[in-house]
Amino acid sequence: MDTTTSKNKHLFFDDIMAMDRFPRMHLMNTISGLKGAHLLGTVSHKGTPNLGVFSSIVHVGANPPHLGFIMRPLTVPRHTYHNIKAKGFFTLNSIHPSFLAKAHQSSANYRVEESEFEAVGLQPFYTESHPAPYVDESPIKIGLEWVEEHHIKANGTLFIVGKVVEVIFPEEAMAPSGHILHDQLETMAVSGLDTYYEAGNKHQLAYARPPKS
Amino acid sequence: MDTTTSKNKHLFFDDIMAMDRFPRMHLMNTISGLKGAHLLGTVSHKGTPNLGVFSSIVHVGANPPHLGFIMRPLTVPRHTYHNIKAKGFFTLNSIHPSFLAKAHQSSANYRVEESEFEAVGLQPFYTESHPAPYVDESPIKIGLEWVEEHHIKANGTLFIVGKVVEVIFPEEAMAPSGHILHDQLETMAVSGLDTYYEAGNKHQLAYARPPKS
Repeated sequence: MDTTTSKNKHLFFDDIMAMDRFPRMHLMNTISGLKGAHLLGTVSHKGTPNLGVFSSIVHVGANPPHLGFIMRPLTVPRHTYHNIKAKGFFTLNSIHPSFLAKAHQSSANYRVEESEFEAVGLQPFYTESHPAPYVDESPIKIGLEWVEEHHIKANGTLFIVGKVVEVIFPEEAMAPSGHILHDQLETMAVSGLDTYYEAGNKHQLAYARPPKS
Repeated sequence: MDTTTSKNKHLFFDDIMAMDRFPRMHLMNTISGLKGAHLLGTVSHKGTPNLGVFSSIVHVGANPPHLGFIMRPLTVPRHTYHNIKAKGFFTLNSIHPSFLAKAHQSSANYRVEESEFEAVGLQPFYTESHPAPYVDESPIKIGLEWVEEHHIKANGTLFIVGKVVEVIFPEEAMAPSGHILHDQLETMAVSGLDTYYEAGNKHQLAYARPPKS
């Protein structure tokens, strides 16, 4: 698409609010671009593993290591939230094209006593140091402990912060610089709720500094 | 990389904390995968436009439309934060490969009285309804109004929430379903601070539902 010659659409807040529910949902879920696609794993008090797709994972800090994510409003039962609060731990697992269909299917609304792992055919993997299940098929596995949450007044969503207590990934996936090589791991991104992207051409740039004056 | 046969690296919290500063920073900035890459535009009280790269934009809600992002701790002056609080508005602008080098350069630490637009050679674009500058070259322009912020106790970062008051994008970039076609717009993602990715192969899946029993 040659965007330099395209005619623009210009929508204001009231135009967005006047849209039908589903087009508005897709527009507002996709307009902010590509996001990381993660399988978030938890386990219930009764021991049932739970899995779902989350696309709102952000880097909070490296020292000490923390990540955060958005939990939708608690207007209906949220198994993931319930389990995180019951057990204190959760996992983030990367999505690879070889199991994308299974990963996406885990976002379906299964009953609380059903394991999404079993329902979609992914393998739970446990370590001795962390109670929540990892996805065995995921190249990158991150284990987190809940540390705090914030209630977003605008719409009742929660911003949840976890401390990284464990990471597991293929040895050759980390460059000597510390960078994880997502192109080689084929880590997937997502836009909105249903449109996944593979990582395309990579451009590694130098640290940006102002020119010397 | 055949991750099914790779030997795994397994790091615990203490191992991560014991890493040298830069490898730890790169590991923890990149391990959570691909993120959207945005140019965040603000304007100072004196009228100087400001621009920087942000990779922590998350969807907070569609109805009404809100986005959020992480602002690093206020341990040094943060022009972006200062301007958002002074004026109440900011913009998010997508990054296209044709101006990636300029976009990345805007993340350099320029002096407060310098405009990153001018320094890197990007064109500011203003609408009548919003005081903060957009990036004229960006296919997707999102105008936001600050509504709330949350102080993350773990490390002093802020989670900032904005209400979407205006969006501008090429007409043919929105499907009838409301989806923005990021593959056609060549919207870029980023991993960590310096590794940008083009959107690769797209997989559009159906809404996931449990099988009928």
